[in-house]
Amino acid sequence: MPARRQREFFAVRTLGEALTGFRPSRRTETERVPLEEAFGRVAAQPLTAPEALPGFARATVDGYAVRAADTYGASEGLPGYLELIGEARMGRPPEVELGPGTAVSIATGAPLPPGADAVLMVEHTQSALPELVEVLRPVAPGDGMVRADEDAAPGAELAPAGRPLRAHDLGMLAAAGITEVLVRERPRVTVVSTGDELVPADTPELEIGQVRDSTALALAALVREAGGEPSHAGIVPDDREALAATLRSALPESDVLVVSAGSSVGARDETALAIASLGEPGIWCHGLAFRPGKPTLLAECDGVPVVGLPGNPRSALVVFRVVGMPIVRLVAGCTDPPPDAATSARLDRDLPSAAGRADVVQARVRHGVATPLFGSSSLLSILTEADGYLVVPEAATGLAAGSEVEVTLYR
Amino acid sequence: MPARRQREFFAVRTLGEALTGFRPSRRTETERVPLEEAFGRVAAQPLTAPEALPGFARATVDGYAVRAADTYGASEGLPGYLELIGEARMGRPPEVELGPGTAVSIATGAPLPPGADAVLMVEHTQSALPELVEVLRPVAPGDGMVRADEDAAPGAELAPAGRPLRAHDLGMLAAAGITEVLVRERPRVTVVSTGDELVPADTPELEIGQVRDSTALALAALVREAGGEPSHAGIVPDDREALAATLRSALPESDVLVVSAGSSVGARDETALAIASLGEPGIWCHGLAFRPGKPTLLAECDGVPVVGLPGNPRSALVVFRVVGMPIVRLVAGCTDPPPDAATSARLDRDLPSAAGRADVVQARVRHGVATPLFGSSSLLSILTEADGYLVVPEAATGLAAGSEVEVTLYR
Repeated sequence: MPARRQREFFAVRTLGEALTGFRPSRRTETERVPLEEAFGRVAAQPLTAPEALPGFARATVDGYAVRAADTYGASEGLPGYLELIGEARMGRPPEVELGPGTAVSIATGAPLPPGADAVLMVEHTQSALPELVEVLRPVAPGDGMVRADEDAAPGAELAPAGRPLRAHDLGMLAAAGITEVLVRERPRVTVVSTGDELVPADTPELEIGQVRDSTALALAALVREAGGEPSHAGIVPDDREALAATLRSALPESDVLVVSAGSSVGARDETALAIASLGEPGIWCHGLAFRPGKPTLLAECDGVPVVGLPGNPRSALVVFRVVGMPIVRLVAGCTDPPPDAATSARLDRDLPSAAGRADVVQARVRHGVATPLFGSSSLLSILTEADGYLVVPEAATGLAAGSEVEVTLYR
Repeated sequence: MPARRQREFFAVRTLGEALTGFRPSRRTETERVPLEEAFGRVAAQPLTAPEALPGFARATVDGYAVRAADTYGASEGLPGYLELIGEARMGRPPEVELGPGTAVSIATGAPLPPGADAVLMVEHTQSALPELVEVLRPVAPGDGMVRADEDAAPGAELAPAGRPLRAHDLGMLAAAGITEVLVRERPRVTVVSTGDELVPADTPELEIGQVRDSTALALAALVREAGGEPSHAGIVPDDREALAATLRSALPESDVLVVSAGSSVGARDETALAIASLGEPGIWCHGLAFRPGKPTLLAECDGVPVVGLPGNPRSALVVFRVVGMPIVRLVAGCTDPPPDAATSARLDRDLPSAAGRADVVQARVRHGVATPLFGSSSLLSILTEADGYLVVPEAATGLAAGSEVEVTLYR
């Protein structure tokens, strides 16, 4: 059957192709949230300043508000003299206007009185008489102050759309009086676990052969880290009809659907058939040329991205971190995801790899030395012992001991 | 007054001294939380395996459970033959025991029957007759399987204390049947804002001279990022008695107390006196030799760490990120904080700095080039435009254009 063989050939992609090529168009709806709850949320549109900020010219030093021209030529040897006509009070509108030859005492943060165009630092003055300021140095216009629109002009962008809002974005928005933000809703990510061996994670005693469903709980945490709202549709046996029924009922309630597939080859094929029955355009790839992600399935069914994960818990978590989290972020409108923590390290042993396949390798990092961790992909301990992972690229046939590698660190 | 001068001299510390030297002993109490809510929490003690994991010997390939010795010498030219006596079912205890010269068909993940010590991959067999397995390659004991305690031996550490629990830690704990975790309570971090110019962030219209309290809201987000529970004790005018009263009433309800001080020199001194009145041992340092953190105050009053921040919003946020967040984490028992994201970049201009003072400089990073951002420390826009920050160390008198710098990235 050459047709079938060809379809299978085209359905296997590289990791890079998956990350750049599988770009579902689905986006969550928008909602308004109070600014206090907007930390880490993704703005649906750029947020702009309704008014100038700080909104008034402000002193940035303690001293005297002056007309800069009045200070020109002043020096310690030949001081200038200004008449002290009042005080700029913190938090209050100015009560005096500055005429030629006058000064107003002012503290950091207070508003400049009309007529003033600079603030002279108190260290550069002397006060010989109570109502006279002795000027020991000249100032230029703009010295010791910020302009009324120096933090933001009206209409200026305060925070962009497309990346999680940071703590200081919230500060900036608060300064501008913005109390609500239009953000994308958190994507509803439904996780379906399949496997005849799986029992709920809270099962106290296991029979020989049973395994607690650890993946769903770990996936829920990764979904939250990516800004999504996880839910668990339960454990389905390795049966195509039962799985298809669960997926069909979960689909309309999901922005992203994740299937943690059975681990045997037969169960994987059943999962693929169940997903293929869900809707158009269907399966985008049915295998990724990377280890441990080979059995990964990516699909789009009735507008919902579907991720089929490998059956081994460790492979499932690695694939979801590398391939699934970017999809959740994308659906949330996060086109500019936050940077991962990473560190450079020297590999302490040879790392064999097959050309044409990327390898995601777990590693410990101590004092700049990376030690790859090996073991069956069914072992979660390889993941929990790792500080992060490194990627051996598709083109390489392994890395030699001593190579400099970039390890993406878990947090 | 030489005594006073000496005290002031000792009270100014370097950034490094503050980070390593100011180590309050306060720790939050412990509480039990369901595993589903333990993501990012800090375990109060190492979490260990109550039983072996996976708990039974498991196939990691599809094929036949065998006694390895029965396969020795087999080859494509001279196959061995084993009697197929049954099937190991996924999720069920084995129903047969393996005697010499027999095999049991098995799928990835299923339990090995007693007597088997390896799994032969289906690819290395042929089945000539329904009840006969033709062995084309030998296997060694342990091939194609994991041992009953290979993921964790009873008593093995599954997750450490002292760092936030990661997604795959939760998976590992779920696999072990741990449904509740003893974690440290989130530190209660009370933020007190002071400044005659400050008005609540939700004030729609400002008078000239008024400024919305943006710092409290941004600090709340940073507190959450550090694993704390923020609360805001409101805005207090620049008045020592009023501030001292607010601090005194907040102290017993706080695990960490943060004062976002007035920006003028006078207000800072009042804040220091108010904090000094709170309790013993009192002020640890009253100035940090780093920009923009110079007016930072660190104290411990009646067992509560107190952080006095500079008055400028931008300086306050930088100092809290660099100095305050580690204190919140420490009080939460997080002795091994998660790594920051960072990137190496080339500086695109000279960066002057004074020796003996560290400079925290905001920077944009594009295509490996870091552009430092300058401007008054009262401007929040410098922070929101930055991708991260770099530190010019105390010993340096600046960095030359072209220098390689490490930029810690915001996320």
